[in-house]
Amino acid sequence: MIISIIGVGLLGGSFALSLKKKYPLVKFVGVDTSIVNQKIALAKGIVDEIVSLEDALQMAELNVLATPVDTIGKLLPTLLDQIPEGRTIMDLGSTKELVCEIVDGHPNRKQFVAVHPMAGTENSGPGAAFAELLTDKNVIICGRDKTDRDCLMLVEAFLRDIGMKIHYMNPQEHDHHLAYVSHLSHISSFALGLTVLDKERDEKAIFDMASTGFSSTVRLAKSSPQMWAPIFAQNQKNVSKALGDYIALLKKFKTAIDQGETEISLDYMTKANDIGRILAGIEKK
Amino acid sequence: MIISIIGVGLLGGSFALSLKKKYPLVKFVGVDTSIVNQKIALAKGIVDEIVSLEDALQMAELNVLATPVDTIGKLLPTLLDQIPEGRTIMDLGSTKELVCEIVDGHPNRKQFVAVHPMAGTENSGPGAAFAELLTDKNVIICGRDKTDRDCLMLVEAFLRDIGMKIHYMNPQEHDHHLAYVSHLSHISSFALGLTVLDKERDEKAIFDMASTGFSSTVRLAKSSPQMWAPIFAQNQKNVSKALGDYIALLKKFKTAIDQGETEISLDYMTKANDIGRILAGIEKK
Repeated sequence: MIISIIGVGLLGGSFALSLKKKYPLVKFVGVDTSIVNQKIALAKGIVDEIVSLEDALQMAELNVLATPVDTIGKLLPTLLDQIPEGRTIMDLGSTKELVCEIVDGHPNRKQFVAVHPMAGTENSGPGAAFAELLTDKNVIICGRDKTDRDCLMLVEAFLRDIGMKIHYMNPQEHDHHLAYVSHLSHISSFALGLTVLDKERDEKAIFDMASTGFSSTVRLAKSSPQMWAPIFAQNQKNVSKALGDYIALLKKFKTAIDQGETEISLDYMTKANDIGRILAGIEKK
Repeated sequence: MIISIIGVGLLGGSFALSLKKKYPLVKFVGVDTSIVNQKIALAKGIVDEIVSLEDALQMAELNVLATPVDTIGKLLPTLLDQIPEGRTIMDLGSTKELVCEIVDGHPNRKQFVAVHPMAGTENSGPGAAFAELLTDKNVIICGRDKTDRDCLMLVEAFLRDIGMKIHYMNPQEHDHHLAYVSHLSHISSFALGLTVLDKERDEKAIFDMASTGFSSTVRLAKSSPQMWAPIFAQNQKNVSKALGDYIALLKKFKTAIDQGETEISLDYMTKANDIGRILAGIEKK
């Protein structure tokens, strides 16, 4: 069997590496517009060969679309136009509403499985890929009812075999939740990093004074702008709402601090402490 | 020698545990208003005995004031009134301007060393204390010139012996920088946790969909409200400014997303990526 990885970055690369461990006989072919990514993906053994997009589609039983989400939206209709019968395309994108809408009604819609693994790091590119990234993590499949049963079962078998826990959701719900539990925390982190960099021109002070707490909060500010800008654009409505909620709460927090209303800020923080239960659940995963 | 730990929480407890490793002959006495903290501190071997504040002050060569910062401000003048000659008080608080102002002009001001270790976790209380918390971390001493040479040298010797790197700063500078590199990231995290909890009443969805990125960003929202409310109150002016800068940037980010100005959000994120250099420095520490 041949599997193609279209976009051999952190997620596509990690998916390939974890599958390789379980399926040593499968051949992996890679497609990437970046020569550097091609070289690293080959050198790291993520893929066995670099091929053109057209060749990948003709060769592969399963095509894994792991590019930034704007490219997924552009490529997917053409790939579905050309895909041989019985073959499967899955994506790994962080937004689902638009991509499911784009292919809705396509004669080969059933050959597409919309997949989003709840895993990532602040690093990007094939150099950052590792086989364990997806192990024990949750994965969401959207629009299951629009997908061919065999295509779905193939993808699910692979996801289970690498240790992922499968959940199902409609694309609208998915994008709504993701705005809060993922997209917003990236924006809060990018903005925190930039605020501190803007203010603290004396970098020596940041080095000396920042501790692991700052480091943890601002870690996501290292994430790839090229990956995240299209996510925010595609999930504009939900991200804007989540960001609006966040700004409104920060303003209330600021007012409480400005007016010395310690009881109010104590109340906010005490309620926020409840996130501890959620974190315990995430860290157990 | 006897050292008193006044407030046997995360920081006071960790400081005692690290000193105990280096100075097995020193006796540690603890002062705490919480019976539970007293019991845990004894059970964990953080202190050898629980004593009254008055007794601690009479017994100890060095008194370590490790309570929330509002209590530091309240206790310190009285402690300085009563402290025997030649003895030392140091604090471990996260704000320095107000506490230095309060004791400025006190006849025993010279016996006080204003100390702030750049270390912590989102957990609190003596149960969370561990000997390695302060190892290899930076520590700021404020108002060095107002401190007696012997008191200063004793404190510095202890700090160096447990592996801390000492820096000096005036209290105003300290509080200004801390607002950006520590206090702001706590507020951003508390507010993020609360925004997500408010919105995501369906906790199942958070459990399934949140990943390690969210977990990292929101980790500080578990921090103690009782510790942080007085910090925000004491550093009100700087925290308010930092929070205002952060909100202003988030609004610009939101406008860029709302108006589909991808170039602008790309630009913000690319600039924020520069935080990677700072993080590399922190993680090396």
